[in-house]
Amino acid sequence: MKEEVLELAKKQKIKIYPEVSIKTKDDLSLLYTPGVAELCKIIQEDKNKMYDYTSKRNLVAVVSDGSAVLGLGNIGNKASYPVMEGKSLLFKEFGGVDAIPIIVRSQEAKEIIKTVEQIADSFGAINLEDIGSPKCFEVERKLKEKLDIPVFHDDQHGTAVVVLAALINSLRLIGKGKDIKVVVSGAGAAGIAVAKFLNSYGLENIVICDSKGIISKERENLNWAKKELLEFTNKENLTGNLKDAMKGSDVFIGVSAPKIVSKEMVESMKEDPIIFAMSNPIPEIMPDETKEAGARVVGTGRSDFPNQINNSLAFPGIFRGVLDARATDITKDMKIAASKALADCVGKDLKEDFVIPSMLDKEVHKKVAEAVRKKALEISMLTLSTTKVRRF
Amino acid sequence: MKEEVLELAKKQKIKIYPEVSIKTKDDLSLLYTPGVAELCKIIQEDKNKMYDYTSKRNLVAVVSDGSAVLGLGNIGNKASYPVMEGKSLLFKEFGGVDAIPIIVRSQEAKEIIKTVEQIADSFGAINLEDIGSPKCFEVERKLKEKLDIPVFHDDQHGTAVVVLAALINSLRLIGKGKDIKVVVSGAGAAGIAVAKFLNSYGLENIVICDSKGIISKERENLNWAKKELLEFTNKENLTGNLKDAMKGSDVFIGVSAPKIVSKEMVESMKEDPIIFAMSNPIPEIMPDETKEAGARVVGTGRSDFPNQINNSLAFPGIFRGVLDARATDITKDMKIAASKALADCVGKDLKEDFVIPSMLDKEVHKKVAEAVRKKALEISMLTLSTTKVRRF
Repeated sequence: MKEEVLELAKKQKIKIYPEVSIKTKDDLSLLYTPGVAELCKIIQEDKNKMYDYTSKRNLVAVVSDGSAVLGLGNIGNKASYPVMEGKSLLFKEFGGVDAIPIIVRSQEAKEIIKTVEQIADSFGAINLEDIGSPKCFEVERKLKEKLDIPVFHDDQHGTAVVVLAALINSLRLIGKGKDIKVVVSGAGAAGIAVAKFLNSYGLENIVICDSKGIISKERENLNWAKKELLEFTNKENLTGNLKDAMKGSDVFIGVSAPKIVSKEMVESMKEDPIIFAMSNPIPEIMPDETKEAGARVVGTGRSDFPNQINNSLAFPGIFRGVLDARATDITKDMKIAASKALADCVGKDLKEDFVIPSMLDKEVHKKVAEAVRKKALEISMLTLSTTKVRRF
Repeated sequence: MKEEVLELAKKQKIKIYPEVSIKTKDDLSLLYTPGVAELCKIIQEDKNKMYDYTSKRNLVAVVSDGSAVLGLGNIGNKASYPVMEGKSLLFKEFGGVDAIPIIVRSQEAKEIIKTVEQIADSFGAINLEDIGSPKCFEVERKLKEKLDIPVFHDDQHGTAVVVLAALINSLRLIGKGKDIKVVVSGAGAAGIAVAKFLNSYGLENIVICDSKGIISKERENLNWAKKELLEFTNKENLTGNLKDAMKGSDVFIGVSAPKIVSKEMVESMKEDPIIFAMSNPIPEIMPDETKEAGARVVGTGRSDFPNQINNSLAFPGIFRGVLDARATDITKDMKIAASKALADCVGKDLKEDFVIPSMLDKEVHKKVAEAVRKKALEISMLTLSTTKVRRF
């Protein structure tokens, strides 16, 4: 495979191919000077006209400092570039979004924020990627405050949106409601975002574990992002390890480490357990073992097992939707709309091995986009003056 | 024309069209995870491999703060975006370079420098554009020091390279050598760069004027960039206005303001005057008047007169050349090579109305690129350890 990867990498992945071209003197005067001056004057009058008359409307920056690249860790900004390029390919293929990698040299939150703030006017939205936790929360929060375009840390929200979609369908299949106990293993960017998002959806019994066990009031030296989790998770203040957490739970969601869940731990769960073991490439527990231990629905992050729970199902459609709506933010309601649309794509084909659609199915991305666009417009109409979503 | 410009602006000018695409699971694993990890590891080992295995090799950022947009002034970064987009179209059409606009929110030199430094690893070269003088000199100088990729302020050097090309051919036609007196009108980015570049080419008798007259030791309140000019211009310490400067001169180069040169001023020059009146859209003196006043060679910045002296003749080929050579800098020698290649494109067709080729002739850009590439490689071989040009 390596040879093939290297061969493909000699091709230009970020290649500009404009819809117009300059061949004649007339083209020059319409597309460059003196013609462009007309556009400049219009935008000087009304900055929002950038969306009508420039490429900003469809451009997304995929921003990373390379501090937390999936499976590779802190490899620095330059070495992270191929991931951002691959992401840009997915943006184009599945969302029709023109995305370009912007790798930032500093790994300090303050510098990343400042840099993105300085260049943001060039883009219609910002996708943050592979930025370490808990720094990623600060970077995203501050940028959302400062910028008038959507900012989305995909490692967090992309994962959370797809997990909720798979969970909605799994619960529908099994016939359980929101009164379930969910255990999240992993308290990095993805785990924390999943916990927060499921809670915002209405799940109230969530216990989250990191490598040291259950996050509880008794734990010392928790970083601020983990401390914040105590505001809504683990209301019974359970202590102990992952095994203790999983006893009597309905759902296990792993975004943590390979092979840390045993069959016995699955057996200790309530009837019809739902297991999303998404550690990549080796899951927290392999699907065959999970099934043997009595799990009803099993998902992983891998493409060679059923139910691949992968953020690539969410981000292309979400960005397509917000760009089409010219939204200025991606809100919780828009993300829930994306999850529901994703879940609906499965429709009447719903079964244990099919709770989430394939990311290669382009219709899926279109449906996510449409749901997000509609929700963005709905929000902008409902809350004219208070929302950050642009009005029409 | 306005209607047509607006219609064209609805098209995506910065549109990504990758040379590869993701249609199957295999594509996904080769072009995204897990395949890209191979590329990440290679680059982590050797950062220069970015040029072999990522789009950096052909990507240029067109950076502006919108503080000095030609003909429009300080219109801010957002309103300047259409100019940067147009520039990107020229990059693609004439140089095969994938260029994207990056508009920076701050207009402080320090912030612009910091921002570009932070994102520079994403690109193979930086084109600075429409940044006010004298700030542009500081921004460019500091970025050239800090970055290991070429940085080129086109308003300065693009203009200077094309002026020199036109001048080489004009002098060849007339039969004059380097012992000539040149008057430059305009002491902004372009004027200062033209004066410096002609001097570095070996012209020693240069007098430069701004709107207040000849820049001399007697002038008060000169900004630092204008003061620096006194080190090599106006060695006779002439004082007075543009009219005084032009008396007995051989060449007039205008990058200043409309209609500030009279027929009498041209008549006061030496025999066979060369007049490049490049103020746009209205030249310092109109070509018909210039000819009536006895000028031998007349150039303007306009496409509707002969001899259009326009920086678009230079930058696409220069960037193509440095990207192909993987050069880390654009040196004086590389710019002179570009000027000579441009002049050579005219060849045996040289005549008074044809001292510079047309920018719509694609062969011209290829020849400039090849000359710059060769010179870059030559420099890198001659000065192995001291040059900033990357070795092979």
